[in-house]
This record gives sequence, C-alpha cells and structure tokens, in this order.
Amino acid sequence: MAALPSIKQFKEGILAGNRTLLARAITLVESKKKEHQLLANEVLNAVLPHSGKAVRIGISGTPGVGKSSFIESFGKMLVQNKHRVAVLAVDPSSQLTGGSILGDKTRMVELAAMEEAFVRPSPSEGGLGGVARKTRETMFLCEAAGYDVILVETVGIGQSESTVRDMVDFFLLLMQPGGGDELQGIKRGVLELADALAITKCDGSLEDSARQAYNEYKMGMHILRPGKEDEAWVPEVYLVSSHSGKGLGEVWECINRYTKKSHASGSLSEQRQKQNIAWMWNLIDERLMQGFLASAEVQGQLATLEEDVRNNKVSANYASEQLVNIFSQNNK
Amino acid sequence: MAALPSIKQFKEGILAGNRTLLARAITLVESKKKEHQLLANEVLNAVLPHSGKAVRIGISGTPGVGKSSFIESFGKMLVQNKHRVAVLAVDPSSQLTGGSILGDKTRMVELAAMEEAFVRPSPSEGGLGGVARKTRETMFLCEAAGYDVILVETVGIGQSESTVRDMVDFFLLLMQPGGGDELQGIKRGVLELADALAITKCDGSLEDSARQAYNEYKMGMHILRPGKEDEAWVPEVYLVSSHSGKGLGEVWECINRYTKKSHASGSLSEQRQKQNIAWMWNLIDERLMQGFLASAEVQGQLATLEEDVRNNKVSANYASEQLVNIFSQNNK
Repeated sequence: MAALPSIKQFKEGILAGNRTLLARAITLVESKKKEHQLLANEVLNAVLPHSGKAVRIGISGTPGVGKSSFIESFGKMLVQNKHRVAVLAVDPSSQLTGGSILGDKTRMVELAAMEEAFVRPSPSEGGLGGVARKTRETMFLCEAAGYDVILVETVGIGQSESTVRDMVDFFLLLMQPGGGDELQGIKRGVLELADALAITKCDGSLEDSARQAYNEYKMGMHILRPGKEDEAWVPEVYLVSSHSGKGLGEVWECINRYTKKSHASGSLSEQRQKQNIAWMWNLIDERLMQGFLASAEVQGQLATLEEDVRNNKVSANYASEQLVNIFSQNNK
Repeated sequence: MAALPSIKQFKEGILAGNRTLLARAITLVESKKKEHQLLANEVLNAVLPHSGKAVRIGISGTPGVGKSSFIESFGKMLVQNKHRVAVLAVDPSSQLTGGSILGDKTRMVELAAMEEAFVRPSPSEGGLGGVARKTRETMFLCEAAGYDVILVETVGIGQSESTVRDMVDFFLLLMQPGGGDELQGIKRGVLELADALAITKCDGSLEDSARQAYNEYKMGMHILRPGKEDEAWVPEVYLVSSHSGKGLGEVWECINRYTKKSHASGSLSEQRQKQNIAWMWNLIDERLMQGFLASAEVQGQLATLEEDVRNNKVSANYASEQLVNIFSQNNK
C-alpha cells in the first residue's frame, strides 16, 4: 500500500465520492495490521456522522438460486433510476475456500463496470463475526461516499443470514421454483428473518413451477409465518426474473413501502440505533472472550475441564466458575 | 433453612430418591447465598455421574393453549405406565410478576400429589440465563433421584424456548385450534425448534377446528419447515385432548421413536455433550460480562460511549475497544 493519506484526506475524499480513497479506506478496515486498524477507526469515526442515508438491503438464498444474476439486474435497474448502488457481501466461508462471493470477477460484470455502482467482495478473513464487522463498517463508508442503496449479499449458511439481518433495514430472501423440496437447503429460522420472498427464474420452462412455488409460499407464509401482535409488516412474496426483469420493480416498490412506513413510524431509526448498540455489545463480548482465551493459565485448564463437562464429571456452572476465576486471578 | 446436610448425606439421599433432600438440594441451587452456591456445586458434581438416564422433554405454547392441563394428563399417563416424572419450568417472567408458572398450587394438583411425580415451580430469580441454569441443574438432580421422564415447561416468550431447547432431547410445541390466527402469539423461530406439534383441545365444540388446524399445520410444515439434507427427523403433528386423553399415547410413542432413533445413531449423547459444552461457554460469557459490568471505570464511560454509538458519533468497534481497554487496564 502506498503512503497512507491523512484522516482529513480520507474524510474529504470519501465524502466527495472518491472511489480510490473509498477503496483504500475499506482495505484499512479489512487489514490485520494494528496501525491500519487504528487509522480505520479514526476514518470511520470521521465519516460516520455523514452515513445512514442509504436504504440497507440484505439479500440471501441458497447456492444456485441466482443471487448474483438478481443483484446484477436489480442493481442496474436502480442505477437507471438514478440511484448509486454499493454491493457488499458477508461470506465467512470465503476464508476456508479461499474464494469469496462477489470475488469472482466474472459476476455482475455490467453492474461492476457502472460509474454509479461500487462492488466489493466479501472480506476473506475473520470468521463470521470479523467478516460481518468489516462489511458493516464498509457499508458506513459507502453511505458516506454517497451510495444511497446498499445491497448486502450473503450465502445461505444459516448464521450468516441473521448476522446480516442485524445490519440491514430490509431482508430479501430469494427462493427457487420447485416448492417445498427446494427448502431443504435453507437453514432453520432463515425464512422468518425475511421481510419479503422473491421466487427467482420465473421465465422460460421454469415459469409454471415458479408460479406454483409462489402460491405455495403465499399460503405457507399465511399459515406458518409467526409474527408479533404489534407487527406492522407482513412479509410479501414476489415472482421475479433476472433475465426478463419481471418483478424487479415490484420488489423495489415493496422495499420503498417498507422503508417509508418504518421511517414514518420511527421504527427505522429505532431499529438502526438498536443495531448499533447490539453490535457494540457483540464486539465487547468478542473482545472479552479473546482476552480470556489468550490467557495461558486458562488454556492450561480448558481442555481438561471441557472434557469433564462433556462427560458430566463436573457441572458446566462449576467449570465456568473455575475457568473465570483462573482468568481473573492471573490478570490482576 | 435447618442445619445443612453434608455433601455425602445429600448424595446418598438424592440417589435413594429422598424427596426432602432433593427439594433441599434444589433450594441450594436456587439460593443467592455464596455458601449455598458452593455447596450446590459440590452436591451437583457428586450426583452428576448418576444423571442422564431420563428422557428430557421441553413443552411450550402460548398462554391459554393448555400447557398445564396437558402436562397433568400426560404426566398421569406416564405414571400409570410406571414412569417417574419430574415437572420443571423455565419462566423468566416470574421474577417480574412475582408469580411463576407451576407456582400456582391449584395447577396439576393430581399429578403433584402422586408419589411418582415431582413438580417444582420455576426459579423466580436470575433472568432467563439464571433461571435456565437453575432449572437445568435441577433436572440433573431429579435424574439422579431416579425420575426417568423430565418435562420442562416454558412460556411462549420467544427466547425462553430456544434456551429450553438447548437443555432437552425433544421439544414439543402445543398449538391451539383455530389455525393461522393462533400463531400471532408465537414468536419467530419457535416453530422451527419443534420436534413435534400437538394441537390441543381436540374435543367437544373445538374438535372440528382442531382437525382443521391439524391439516393446515401438516401442510404448512410440509411446505415451510426448513431442514438439513442430513436431517433424520421430520417434525410430526398430533391432535390431543387433555380432557379425553386422546392422542397422548401417540405423542409419547413419537417421543420414544425419536429417542430410540437418536440413541441408536449416537446423536442423542452427541447432542447432550454439545449442550453441556455450549452451556459451559454461555456461563463463561455471562461471568466475563458480569466482571466487565462490575468495573466502576467501565460504568464511568459506558453511558457516554453507548450514546455516541447509538447516534453514530463513534463506531461500535471503536467504543467496544475503548471500553474493553478501560476494563483490562483497571483490572491488572
């Protein structure tokens, strides 16, 4: 990395929509070097007050459902409607596979080439927690740079969806034609995170089965989708084709209705404030646990006590007390 | 409390099925006094190797669904089949209301009066985490005392179901006749914890709507219940009447099929070992957080930084770093 710009240069550049400085700030956020992380924190704090003006949309679905085709078509439509679109991703599996969703340069080529779009692959290190933190901070940087729609793609691996749900305003779940069987790939609880479902591939030979899936999900959501008494939003189901563009406009209208409604009721800013606080506490948890695990004295006892708990030799409560006592005594 | 028995007396008494010593051990587990907690840990560790022989069943459902009537009838049936049944509860709301599920002595009177049954109200202090820990340890004490079926009742308040799911082998969700509308009370994700659904009140004037609900849930589960490719169990739906006893036997057979199957495959003991380890880590988390929050230096900064995070003045990452640094610097 060339000589680092100053915080002031980063701030002014990002606020002016300078893609190069935005990209470099994101690289700092993703860096493992301590000095980069410190600078990243400063830059982020400097631009944070200018963030928050975008619509934050999480998009998920099992492999093969057509996430990238959808995002390419959906993003291009938004750009044509004078929006500036940032596409980010949370893919904790990328560090295992080496690859990364959005990393493949052959995906979303047209969208990525657009001046009004910014496509960034998933961070490839840090586990789900670390990847999500970096993506979340990247989202704030993109908002400060003037992108007014943020699309956060995630893979259908269960935990990652709820993590993404906690950083966006609206969660869209893509489903394939074929009905119940297709659900085998979807992890428990994911359906219930969705603010809307979109049945993809409603074109050509799949159109009929897409319509059938649509009817089944409509009915299924009516029967099984739990909600709260005070719930102001009932998840909607759409038929879309990334190929023909069918339904993309309706999905966008749906998202606008949702955000208008939750903006008017104040629930949008309330949700975002709650998300901020929840993230702070998650990170505190993470850092406390890191300190705990870094203790040599804890490591010395951990394996034995874990084995005793596994086999009911000692209670989980007893073991946790022992370990935390060891930790605090040796870190005074 | 009278002079405390020795650990040896507790152990021998509990293993001999002495109800008085069992009840006193549970009181120790629930006590807030440090010396009681230390003794409780010793007693629990002493009997733990003798626990684990029971079938652990979680039972939930929204208020009015008929949980206590079901448990009364179901428990009596089990006792008639020569089982010894312990009924416990996780009700974090009890500390707010003062009351507690199972606390009302007019509930389950017949079951509670049986020599082969042991009914214990929910601990009334400690928040969800604390209440769950106490109930979980009470479960182990009851198993050591020879109860071979443990029924853990919980209220339908969302988080408590997944907490109970993490301490039992099988999770039964009770639903009312009336179909979709009844679901309004059920929190997201709860349906997906269920290993079986039982539609209650299938008798008298409600029988028809119970049958209708049965068909809807059967279909709904088929359409929407997500699963893993490797999932060996598909949740079943039953019609029950606590009044006539209809369906209670089938539910018990279902639970037996499930436990036999998961015992044979080894997934039962695997799940229990995982549950033990997960609980240990939850408690470590809890204790680390307690230590963090107990720090005066942290408390001095917390409110300000929380407010700054809420309003995007500083990032969640930055604030968490500051607070954890303050904590560790002042606890060295």
